[in-house]
Amino acid sequence: MKAYRTGTGAEAGLQWVDLAPRALGAHEVRVRMQAVSLNYRDVMVASGHYPVAVGQPILASDGAGEVVEVGSEVSRFRVGDRVVTTFFQDWASGPQPARAELTALGAAIDGVLAEEVVLGEQGLLPVPAHFNARQAATLPVAGVTAWTSLFVHGGARPGDTVLLLGTGGVSIWALQLAKAAGLRVIITSSSDDKLAQARALGADRTVNYRRHPEWQDEVLKLTDGLGADLTVEVGGAGTLPRSIAATRVGGTIALVGVLTGMGESINPLPLLIGAKRLQGVLVGSREHQEQLQRFVATSGLAPVIDRVFPFAQAPEALAYLKSGQHFGKVLIEIG
Amino acid sequence: MKAYRTGTGAEAGLQWVDLAPRALGAHEVRVRMQAVSLNYRDVMVASGHYPVAVGQPILASDGAGEVVEVGSEVSRFRVGDRVVTTFFQDWASGPQPARAELTALGAAIDGVLAEEVVLGEQGLLPVPAHFNARQAATLPVAGVTAWTSLFVHGGARPGDTVLLLGTGGVSIWALQLAKAAGLRVIITSSSDDKLAQARALGADRTVNYRRHPEWQDEVLKLTDGLGADLTVEVGGAGTLPRSIAATRVGGTIALVGVLTGMGESINPLPLLIGAKRLQGVLVGSREHQEQLQRFVATSGLAPVIDRVFPFAQAPEALAYLKSGQHFGKVLIEIG
Amino acid sequence: MKAYRTGTGAEAGLQWVDLAPRALGAHEVRVRMQAVSLNYRDVMVASGHYPVAVGQPILASDGAGEVVEVGSEVSRFRVGDRVVTTFFQDWASGPQPARAELTALGAAIDGVLAEEVVLGEQGLLPVPAHFNARQAATLPVAGVTAWTSLFVHGGARPGDTVLLLGTGGVSIWALQLAKAAGLRVIITSSSDDKLAQARALGADRTVNYRRHPEWQDEVLKLTDGLGADLTVEVGGAGTLPRSIAATRVGGTIALVGVLTGMGESINPLPLLIGAKRLQGVLVGSREHQEQLQRFVATSGLAPVIDRVFPFAQAPEALAYLKSGQHFGKVLIEIG
Amino acid sequence: MKAYRTGTGAEAGLQWVDLAPRALGAHEVRVRMQAVSLNYRDVMVASGHYPVAVGQPILASDGAGEVVEVGSEVSRFRVGDRVVTTFFQDWASGPQPARAELTALGAAIDGVLAEEVVLGEQGLLPVPAHFNARQAATLPVAGVTAWTSLFVHGGARPGDTVLLLGTGGVSIWALQLAKAAGLRVIITSSSDDKLAQARALGADRTVNYRRHPEWQDEVLKLTDGLGADLTVEVGGAGTLPRSIAATRVGGTIALVGVLTGMGESINPLPLLIGAKRLQGVLVGSREHQEQLQRFVATSGLAPVIDRVFPFAQAPEALAYLKSGQHFGKVLIEIG
Repeated sequence: MKAYRTGTGAEAGLQWVDLAPRALGAHEVRVRMQAVSLNYRDVMVASGHYPVAVGQPILASDGAGEVVEVGSEVSRFRVGDRVVTTFFQDWASGPQPARAELTALGAAIDGVLAEEVVLGEQGLLPVPAHFNARQAATLPVAGVTAWTSLFVHGGARPGDTVLLLGTGGVSIWALQLAKAAGLRVIITSSSDDKLAQARALGADRTVNYRRHPEWQDEVLKLTDGLGADLTVEVGGAGTLPRSIAATRVGGTIALVGVLTGMGESINPLPLLIGAKRLQGVLVGSREHQEQLQRFVATSGLAPVIDRVFPFAQAPEALAYLKSGQHFGKVLIEIG
Repeated sequence: MKAYRTGTGAEAGLQWVDLAPRALGAHEVRVRMQAVSLNYRDVMVASGHYPVAVGQPILASDGAGEVVEVGSEVSRFRVGDRVVTTFFQDWASGPQPARAELTALGAAIDGVLAEEVVLGEQGLLPVPAHFNARQAATLPVAGVTAWTSLFVHGGARPGDTVLLLGTGGVSIWALQLAKAAGLRVIITSSSDDKLAQARALGADRTVNYRRHPEWQDEVLKLTDGLGADLTVEVGGAGTLPRSIAATRVGGTIALVGVLTGMGESINPLPLLIGAKRLQGVLVGSREHQEQLQRFVATSGLAPVIDRVFPFAQAPEALAYLKSGQHFGKVLIEIG
Repeated sequence: MKAYRTGTGAEAGLQWVDLAPRALGAHEVRVRMQAVSLNYRDVMVASGHYPVAVGQPILASDGAGEVVEVGSEVSRFRVGDRVVTTFFQDWASGPQPARAELTALGAAIDGVLAEEVVLGEQGLLPVPAHFNARQAATLPVAGVTAWTSLFVHGGARPGDTVLLLGTGGVSIWALQLAKAAGLRVIITSSSDDKLAQARALGADRTVNYRRHPEWQDEVLKLTDGLGADLTVEVGGAGTLPRSIAATRVGGTIALVGVLTGMGESINPLPLLIGAKRLQGVLVGSREHQEQLQRFVATSGLAPVIDRVFPFAQAPEALAYLKSGQHFGKVLIEIG
Repeated sequence: MKAYRTGTGAEAGLQWVDLAPRALGAHEVRVRMQAVSLNYRDVMVASGHYPVAVGQPILASDGAGEVVEVGSEVSRFRVGDRVVTTFFQDWASGPQPARAELTALGAAIDGVLAEEVVLGEQGLLPVPAHFNARQAATLPVAGVTAWTSLFVHGGARPGDTVLLLGTGGVSIWALQLAKAAGLRVIITSSSDDKLAQARALGADRTVNYRRHPEWQDEVLKLTDGLGADLTVEVGGAGTLPRSIAATRVGGTIALVGVLTGMGESINPLPLLIGAKRLQGVLVGSREHQEQLQRFVATSGLAPVIDRVFPFAQAPEALAYLKSGQHFGKVLIEIG
């Protein structure tokens, strides 16, 4: 069974390995993976820069495929079921556990960039009926993070204005969710082409941050001087202070994703003066993913897939994601 | 200045009166009314069956028009502004005051079915930019009640299933709001024609309650046996127990509107067994109306107006509303 | 192993049985019961009047004891641990499952009025450090119901006024929790002695409903005419309409417990006029019990135990509970 | 009428001025001040370091006194009433207005460190019955900030653990409120004497941060390695990163007060990794103060007053506050 492991030190990067399948536990399920969706986190894990300590896990957290074997006490799935992973393998519902990260796929434990994976049945969900495996694979991190940022932590209500930064996987998921839920969307990019694509997906207003380096001022102009109700800050060099400035008094900045530049320091004073909330968001629970999947089924939306690489080209897929050229999600197809 | 007063006793019904205009207080505004929207409450007030004690007020609470004069200290409006009333004249924000009803237009105090009305500036809002006076007049009771039922008391989130009863003003406003906010809608009616109209507005599923007298069972079938997350119960003979049965464990039944049949008793046991919530909804605050108006502007939706009567035919308009033939709102145009 | 089963039909009531112990499943725990706490629900189950269909289960849901054996994969407990049951055996966290009642002890499945019980490890919690088994046994239904009524569904905040009816297990738990959390408490009883006991526990105001049959008027007098913010309605003949009248505009009536008289009908109109919320409460999840146990540990409160019967006198204990003479909880001691 | 104005530039500091009383507007009230409570904000305003632009206002925001004259349309107060100020003069309820600071006493507009002040009736509340003027004067900033940090933004529930830093006015108010509401309190100070005083007020655990410079580690030890549910960060040199570290996954750090050191930068990464929330808190609305006053009346607590200076020694009072020697509030008595 082929898989990609991460290396360490001089061996950093992806390692192509062949692993013997292991026997199932009573509550475990064997899944033949069909599609894996990449996140910037995977770039960081592969390059050894992920802030949570890891060994040399199989890469990636987000995948979808078909159940090919079930353990003796599995009750939630049967052979032949189409399934999608959840990011955390042990956070079903309720408040975030203190050590949830230790059960997140593709860092502290083995991930899904493999022909087959064995997971506990509690760490999988059925694929939404109108989704194929590729679409489903975009749900666990990008979809759920957009969902919890907007509707759990952000408490967005119909008519609220949300500010999105760039056109990566989380931002485009958030754009699609926001429009399907009656929010007003302002989105930024350095590319007029990408902004046109965003408008085609429903973005109400767009800001080219190359043309407007003080883009927070443009956001204020587009919001009667008040700022956005909610900003989903996916993290880039120097963006956070501008995001805070672009958010209204009493508003929320959802701090999402472990991107380059996040290591920079910020002055917390504007948060205090503006009674603003800076909310760390670390994906979400299985219940959050179920909420998202229910909404996806209701709204009929289809996630934006930028490009699909074959299994053999996983390193190229990571490099492409890292380059930041994409609009939406970057995937790897398996088998 | 012409207006319609309610009568009492043998004089019940509308009385056509001619009133001298009165001088403005410092914080008051004179509005030339252009459109008045009727609610079932107005039928009850006119017939003397409204449960809150009233005198013989000018009828109706929901109107829109143009500011023709402002008091010496008015700061929110200028002559020429297009304005719409708020239902309560003294509930700006925060929790509902104990005696809010005493400041509600058209019952405890004079309403708006008149050529001109004088209101405190705090009891008016600007008309949304893309609305005409007729559309704006539907906001204060029907629009706000739908808004607070769904998003304030009901806490509806994208993907939730909401059950709506019939095709009156509140239900059709709720249908439009729900679909614009990504909810799934099941709606009932005795008329297949009206159900077809509802589907054209986005209703996901429809139930003809004449064909299915046990319509709560149909709702359960349409929700995998679980029931709706939220039911907006506008009140009709014998509907409440069915609405409770059609709502999921832990769900909410928003009890709206003072309709015929509401006097019937119900057995509270199903609420307890199902951990369900029966929530009385009495319109909302000015802040709620502002939230609604902001969403209306974002979504671009236009309220459904069934029929517009001339000012001279106000009694006919009330009779038409009472007959229950309408789909959406019934209005009166003035001047 | 001795236990009490419920009978049916002519055999209604408790049956003293001797059962062979069964082998443990991998995730199961054997508990030697030390104390069982009775609820009115047990009276109803034993008499065949419980509204959820049951077979002939071992009675009672609330017990505490010591772990004497653990299954091969049990990770939460070890032999010797002191444990207390949770009411639902399969509701860890999040929203209430549709069929939670099917996993509630002592009705749809066997309960705890036995020398030994076998339960899944997920259906137990550690006993709070400063509690003995008797005190812990009062937590699962009475304690958790009081907790969720006040702080989950009721959303009580410091300074709120809560109205409690009578001196049964839920009301006295609610009194103790409310006072430890900075609420103002009004409580009713037909006995001046019991009201004096309630005042000794911190009740701010008391109403003897025998002396004041229109006791809702007394509550209004004690709340500046506004009513209580939250009423915990434990259910008695004719009390619900009075409870609704005694609750403020916008307030909540938590509908708790399946008591005699609950079958009566009510007029929902006062809920609508007062924008009040009638909230069915069906105990709570394991997470709710954990929240309660954490608060109990912080506050150091000790639940009020009215009387403890020996194991052999379980029928007498049920009869005593049914008689309504108690103040606080009625228990049975085992072994 | 004597008052203290702030100076500017070379004239920074307090200026003793004598002002002619001005006539009342229709909705205004003249109050003879009896007690003024100082906040660190007043030190900053007086020294010209307050970040919101100001002119040379009369200093201080928090005062209590007696109504000596009312305008022609005043309905909330009568001559002889005991009143206390609210911090914002135009934020009654609902979400924080964008420019609330422009109506805050003692910076953008004249404050209360004067023999008499004229305020709109909407900017005053009655003094709680069991409070004298000194005690009431501590409510508007210190009391309300503690209240909103704990119960509005922090959402504290009974049994939660709250971490308080130092023994200034906000922290001691928060300690008293937290204990009266059933929270567990950990508090820090550099003085064992002050920590003993805090324990006497109910603090559950104390940490001397001089003895434990890595005091966040002590907090983790006291919370089973999890951290506090809520930290009220009043701001000092280098404390914020430690406060974030001392707060649990998913917890809240309420960022309060404009203190020295707040200008330092922080790394936001720990917020993201821990899904933590950094919430700016800027006092609260009149409704929040009403909630606080209601709780104060219920619980009977009395705020801790460290020292009272005579009116003539206002500069000494400011200097004393700035020195950080106090435990609780520093006041000035007038007349």
